[in-house]
Amino acid sequence: MSAGLVALDELKRELAELKDLVGIASLLAWDQQVMMPSGGAAARADQLSTLGRIIHARATSPELGKLLDAAEPVTAGLDPDCDDARLVAVARYDFEKDVKVPADLRAAMTRVSAEFYPVWVEARRESDFGRFLPYLEQTLELKRRYIECMAPVTEPYDALLDDFEQEMTAATVRPIFARLKEVLIPLVRAAAASGAVDDTPLRRQLPVAGLQQMEQRVLARFGFDSAAWRLDTTVHPFETAIAISDIRLTTRYEVDGLESLFSSMHEFGHGLYEHQIAPELDSTPLAHGASLGWHESQSLLWENLIGRGLPFWERFASELTGVFPNELGSLAASDIYAMVNKVNPDFIRVEADETTYNLHVILRFELEQEMLSGELPLAELPQAWNQRMHDYLGIEVPEDRLGVLQDVHWSQGSFGYFPTYSLGHLRASQLWQRISTELTELSEEIRRGEFASLREWLRENVHRHGRKLTPAELQDRVLGGAIDPEPFIARLREKLAGIYGEALVV
Amino acid sequence: MSAGLVALDELKRELAELKDLVGIASLLAWDQQVMMPSGGAAARADQLSTLGRIIHARATSPELGKLLDAAEPVTAGLDPDCDDARLVAVARYDFEKDVKVPADLRAAMTRVSAEFYPVWVEARRESDFGRFLPYLEQTLELKRRYIECMAPVTEPYDALLDDFEQEMTAATVRPIFARLKEVLIPLVRAAAASGAVDDTPLRRQLPVAGLQQMEQRVLARFGFDSAAWRLDTTVHPFETAIAISDIRLTTRYEVDGLESLFSSMHEFGHGLYEHQIAPELDSTPLAHGASLGWHESQSLLWENLIGRGLPFWERFASELTGVFPNELGSLAASDIYAMVNKVNPDFIRVEADETTYNLHVILRFELEQEMLSGELPLAELPQAWNQRMHDYLGIEVPEDRLGVLQDVHWSQGSFGYFPTYSLGHLRASQLWQRISTELTELSEEIRRGEFASLREWLRENVHRHGRKLTPAELQDRVLGGAIDPEPFIARLREKLAGIYGEALVV
Repeated sequence: MSAGLVALDELKRELAELKDLVGIASLLAWDQQVMMPSGGAAARADQLSTLGRIIHARATSPELGKLLDAAEPVTAGLDPDCDDARLVAVARYDFEKDVKVPADLRAAMTRVSAEFYPVWVEARRESDFGRFLPYLEQTLELKRRYIECMAPVTEPYDALLDDFEQEMTAATVRPIFARLKEVLIPLVRAAAASGAVDDTPLRRQLPVAGLQQMEQRVLARFGFDSAAWRLDTTVHPFETAIAISDIRLTTRYEVDGLESLFSSMHEFGHGLYEHQIAPELDSTPLAHGASLGWHESQSLLWENLIGRGLPFWERFASELTGVFPNELGSLAASDIYAMVNKVNPDFIRVEADETTYNLHVILRFELEQEMLSGELPLAELPQAWNQRMHDYLGIEVPEDRLGVLQDVHWSQGSFGYFPTYSLGHLRASQLWQRISTELTELSEEIRRGEFASLREWLRENVHRHGRKLTPAELQDRVLGGAIDPEPFIARLREKLAGIYGEALVV
Repeated sequence: MSAGLVALDELKRELAELKDLVGIASLLAWDQQVMMPSGGAAARADQLSTLGRIIHARATSPELGKLLDAAEPVTAGLDPDCDDARLVAVARYDFEKDVKVPADLRAAMTRVSAEFYPVWVEARRESDFGRFLPYLEQTLELKRRYIECMAPVTEPYDALLDDFEQEMTAATVRPIFARLKEVLIPLVRAAAASGAVDDTPLRRQLPVAGLQQMEQRVLARFGFDSAAWRLDTTVHPFETAIAISDIRLTTRYEVDGLESLFSSMHEFGHGLYEHQIAPELDSTPLAHGASLGWHESQSLLWENLIGRGLPFWERFASELTGVFPNELGSLAASDIYAMVNKVNPDFIRVEADETTYNLHVILRFELEQEMLSGELPLAELPQAWNQRMHDYLGIEVPEDRLGVLQDVHWSQGSFGYFPTYSLGHLRASQLWQRISTELTELSEEIRRGEFASLREWLRENVHRHGRKLTPAELQDRVLGGAIDPEPFIARLREKLAGIYGEALVV
């Protein structure tokens, strides 16, 4: 065997071990949120920090660099789409990005976000922006240092976006968001004024046992199988993949109406993505979604395109009213469909409907750039937030708890993350447009509670590739071009016209 | 700071990280048995193996050896009982033991036991010793090589015992077991012949919900607190400590009568030991029990000395019959007490009562030595097993599933493990004797469902030390001398005399 082939083998072994360690870190984090008694917190923080140091040391080790140097001549001769070529390319990309960040900066980012998180929890509870402010300042200062490490970038924000959506730029996002604002702001205003949908029946808490029963039935139909999946209860719902056949979802029940059900469908979408990655990629760094924006397209496809669609409720409305005869009486599929798509301008992003959601994101995208450039003095952030909530959603934020302090992201140092939610919305609609032309029986299948052909389509076109393709390559191959807001806008207008009447959208 | 102090600090940091990694491995194993979907098995095996390699590499690294060399002159000048001196001594002991085993032997042991385990599961199900035999041969061969690494030892078996009970020798165990046989064999025979106790009411399955209710009440009284403990369901009950404030117990319900309750009390005893180790030892290798024999003394103390004692049932009998009015009618405390102490010679060790249990262990101890020396040809193991079951318990083993194939231990390469169960029985009775003289109100407290003074006594005298004291040192300080079978024998005779009449024990 040539020296290059030996190095490639050794590289694959090292990457497989790194993947094992990353899977272990996911399990530690999952257990921390789902199973761990509170007394385990301090030891768990130590365990995560020790493991994190080991992973970082190996991911940036000169030995790994040498293996990459030695393996690259081998894969240079291969089909660039083959697993080995892609593996080496992605490993090189990760390595170069990791080594750009000096150890002291990485340590400072870890330390500040560890300190910031509990401060945010307190500050949100007390609605006290003053406590939040100094940590936000420190975090932004570290972000600026981080951006310097990533030079050259066209504009600073691009370095942050790139962590969540490789190669995405603010210059690409801006016109897309401008178009969304142009359409969504008047649409939200008109819908809010119309009062055509009364969703009171779904505005109260439903019995947990019934919700769990519905959830199990729906997820079983979707493809949830206890041999490879778990569903547990946590404060904040999330999905994590310990391996492609060990997918863990969580949901929560302290919410109104069907929120827990939608949350489960959402996390199922994330889980199915990881579960349908080609098995031969499982012990490599390719066994993840292509980007956050792609991940979100999958969760939103199942939550909104399926779960808030009329065919879904034509299948499940009678089951739902059968489970909740006292609470929901004899609501028809079309009633539920209208209620779960009601346009409801409100304060909290994670509770937002499909129409208002992207305006929450756009507000954050704009503020992040202004904070980063220094154009917006941080002390004025709450006012700037509230002003935009007024301009975009027509509502007045009464306290920072319901405004600028609502999200966990900034306290974790995640700037540049929010836009990926909207990219997910837009991609989901682009996918839906293509799927609808290819799976012509899909609505009928959904009405029968059948999802196998949809799962297969997603596996074949999106999931199986994992990180083999960059987000843009995947976009190009599956959707034939750039991210496009028009399919989302067209679908939304059509849906709202059906629910609120044609007058709303003209 | 002197170079020695710097080295001591660095050593402590390294040991703390090793402890973190060991805690992580415990969590992976816990999750594997309790939570993991079956599809996660292959990835979990990889994760455990990668982590195991990292732990082993660090536990045997020349750098660790150098840190020990440099730190020892510092701790040589300290009180030998202080935390730092004990920490360095234990770390040295572990290091020297670990480096004795060459990497290829360790890899072979890991590989063979990974292969052996599923073969054992199959062989037991099919009652097919022939499938078990070749793996047993390989395992014993590896054990012999392992023993060579541990030279010099007085006799080979000592090297195996030492892994579970440091410094214990076969020469110490043999006369103790001879004494137990002398007493137990006739006692078992007499009790079996007497027929004085009818435990039919506890020979059937009780409803799981009621068992869980009883379990929660009892464990809450014992000191189980959800801020630091979990209790889950598994095929085989066990306890694992992820940290001293993160204790995880499991139990199972596919058993008759009150077995699940006793199993929970047993695992609680293990858990309390780890939970009450001095908090300042938590991030060191001292934060474990002193040995398996000490651990078992704690689990048996709660299971047998408390849970099968009359005062316990004077407190809990009416609660039990209140939970199971249809199944248990109006059984009195003394009825339940007699039933749960019935002498019942049977095939399966893990289901054995307190009187027959040690005979199961002695049989294994004797056979292990004969296998190791070659005195017993392995092909004749089933006959030798069955002969001893006849001689010790007076019963005829109908098939190997109920005989030689029943235990998991040999398939995991655990030889020399079984005697620690009996050492635990004997120590529990020695402890009980001393506790009874010091906590004179204990029976009264148990009748009131109060266990705080017992917990405190155990914390102060046994638990807090962790591994700071060797098993023999702890024995010496708490029990003032060697392991002694007489307190166990005396307590057993007194108990059986009360239940079966004086005639049984004269």
